[in-house]
Formats: sequence, structure tokens, C-alpha cells
Amino acid sequence: MSITQAEIKRIRSLREKKFRDATGLFVVEGEKLVREALHSGFRVEGVWRREEIGDAAMERISQLSTPSPVLAVVARPEPSEPVLESCLCLALDGVRDPGNLGTIIRTADWFGVRTVFVSGDCAEQFNPKVIQASMGSVFRVRVVAAELPELCRRVREAGMPVYGTFLDGRDLYAEPLSATGLVIMGNEASGIREDVAAQVDRRLRIPAWEGAGAESLNVASATAVVLSEFRRR
Amino acid sequence: MSITQAEIKRIRSLREKKFRDATGLFVVEGEKLVREALHSGFRVEGVWRREEIGDAAMERISQLSTPSPVLAVVARPEPSEPVLESCLCLALDGVRDPGNLGTIIRTADWFGVRTVFVSGDCAEQFNPKVIQASMGSVFRVRVVAAELPELCRRVREAGMPVYGTFLDGRDLYAEPLSATGLVIMGNEASGIREDVAAQVDRRLRIPAWEGAGAESLNVASATAVVLSEFRRR
Repeated sequence: MSITQAEIKRIRSLREKKFRDATGLFVVEGEKLVREALHSGFRVEGVWRREEIGDAAMERISQLSTPSPVLAVVARPEPSEPVLESCLCLALDGVRDPGNLGTIIRTADWFGVRTVFVSGDCAEQFNPKVIQASMGSVFRVRVVAAELPELCRRVREAGMPVYGTFLDGRDLYAEPLSATGLVIMGNEASGIREDVAAQVDRRLRIPAWEGAGAESLNVASATAVVLSEFRRR
Repeated sequence: MSITQAEIKRIRSLREKKFRDATGLFVVEGEKLVREALHSGFRVEGVWRREEIGDAAMERISQLSTPSPVLAVVARPEPSEPVLESCLCLALDGVRDPGNLGTIIRTADWFGVRTVFVSGDCAEQFNPKVIQASMGSVFRVRVVAAELPELCRRVREAGMPVYGTFLDGRDLYAEPLSATGLVIMGNEASGIREDVAAQVDRRLRIPAWEGAGAESLNVASATAVVLSEFRRR
């Protein structure tokens, strides 16, 4: 399989969000991620390998500083209505860093959380840095844009608890944690917004060690601790 | 306080590890980090503020894509002999990503782990990305270069356990975890090296949720889960 100049140009354009939005396509790179794309329910538009198109073309289409041996163009799935009932779901309020978002998606996948709701100002889920940091979990975890205050109301109306993490919440290790419900994690610097916080009925805190110096945890690390605590038996 | 061309050149040179090594100096940026540097035991060589030196000079000396309003040049502390007795310590075997190392140092600080041992092929602790990701915890957590197999032998000789995380270890949630000892986390892709693994007497695993898809957790997220589990009461 060779590659045309028009294809190179089109693939390069997917570095920009506006072209990803316009075409509904995104790029994944590396043996593992391309394999996962091919085995996912996502439609794969094309796969290009270095040994077929040459180093120079691969360097032009790759978004990595060290081009990987294989790159695929993948179509976004159709948005579907998430099921809230009888699941533990995660919601992110303004998680801006793509590395953090990708890492959180990977962690959700590990702990069996199938849906991650994101506020409009989160990093874009098809940003290449999100895809890479997720290590393929973007193909298994559903990421759904949502108005978080409205989502919280729906979860509570369905009779499920809404958890959120706050520096002044209640001890995560001591609180009863349910198998279903919604867990909200906030922005890297400012945490959970007020209009969302107003909908949280169970405020949690990850206790720091006595005398510890750090003011907070990285949001992806905090998410890992919280989900581990929900899932430990 | 103004800034000379020679100072600009010297500060810029600290982007490179060889100049950081030759001078024993490193750069921190941002109000929070500079404040933490000034309140730490580290010697601060100089502080430059945008309102004093101007936008153009700040852009030249800053290592950030968006230059912060303040930058400091800080001297590395003298290496000191770490105390192994009666502490929980962390050791990293080939954690290469600077963001991961910085995040792990921040997490160690949160959970009261005062010393992090690093193998020779870990990211450099004074790399600007490590400093930024640590959010100031580099000023409180001691990072010590070590030959990990030898370190493990010393810990065991002192009568303390050596823990390590492996995909086939024993259930982290079910194992007894001591208040003192050494916890080893491995490289992002390949985990803990064989010669180090041979010294681990308590192999742990973070259980994945049944049917979960992810093959592993990000190493910084895994460290957060493990330290949380050691510290929860």
C-alpha cells in the first residue's frame, strides 16, 4: 500500500481539532494502539506502515517526535445514550491536560468503569496526546460530553449517589462506597465547580499523611486512588 | 533587579542536563514553585520577575510555552545518606517519563514518603518537566540515586520487607502491608528488572476489575494506588 500526497495532506490536517471535528476522524499510532483499533468496534479508514510508505512519508504523517512504524486513521463512533442505571460512572469537570484525561480513561478501563462523562472544557478525547496516554482504552471506555449539573440531577433522580472529591470532604477510607453511582473529579487547579458541587451528596477526601507537604494530588493519581477504593473488596 | 545578557545566556544553558550537572543549578518557574523554593532548605541563586526584566527577557529565559511571571535559579542540595530504618521508602526502577517521575514525587509527598530512590536510567530529577509536575514536592522529598539490587539487600539486612508490583503478584488489597520497608515500582513498559525483582520478597498486584480491558495502569497512577493502600487505616 502506497500513499498519495493528498492522503498525506489529509492525515496531517487531523492534527487540528477543527479538521477532526469536520471529518469525524482521528489518528492512532503504534503497533499496540493500531491493533486495538482494528479489534475494536470502531471503523478503521486506513492503516499505513513504514515499510510500505517509506521513512520520509511516515515522518510527514506521524504526530510523534519519534514516528512509530504504523499509523491508522479511525472514525469516531456515533454518540449513544449512556446507561446510568446499575453502573459506577466517572465524570470529569474541566480536566484540561490531555495526558491527565488519557491516563484517567486508562484507569477507568482498569477498574471496570465503562463510561466517563466530560464537561465541555475538558481536553478533547480525540486529541493525539489523549489517545496515546489512554494506551488503547479510548476504544473500550465510552467518553460522553455532558452538562454535569443536569447529569447529577438525573443520577440522583434514579436513586443513585453522586460522589465528589474535595479537600474538605469526608475520609474516603471510612465512608461507605456503593457499587453504583457517579464519581466526579475536578479541574487540575480549581477542583469541582460550584454548580456541580451543589449537586454532590457525598463529599469525599483522600486523607494526606500527617505532616505531609503536598497541597493536593495530581487529578489522574487521585482518580486512581478513588476508583481503587470503590473497587477494593 | 535587571538582567544581563550573560545571565540570560547562563539561565538558558540550564535547559540542558550537561550544564545542570556542571553547575549544580536548576530552574523553577511560577509563583507557587518559586515561593516553595524560597521557603525550602535549598539555596536560591536568583529570582527574576517579569515586571522587573520585561516580557522579552522573560520569554528568553523561560522554559515554558507560556512564560510565567517569575523564575528562580536554585542550587541542588548536597547528597546525604538516606535513613532506611523505620520509614516507608519508594524506589523507581527505570521510570523514564519526566511527567511520571514528577507526579510520583508529588504523590510520595502527599502520602508522607520522604525518600524516593531512583535507578540511573530514571528521568533526571532536575529536568524542568519533573520539577513542574512535582508541584514543589521536589523541595520536600529526597530523591536519591541508587543501585537498586544493592539497596534491596541493605533493606532486607535491616530486617525490613521489600515490596514490588508485578502483574502476577498477590492481591494488594488482601496482603498485610507494613509501616516500614521499601516499595519498588518499575519501568513504564517493562516493569521491574530481573536483578531487582530477584530481591523482592513481597510481590504485589493491583487487581483489575473482572473483564476489564486495560493491560496495565500508568506507573504514576499505580504508585498512587499502592501508597494509598499502605497508608489507609
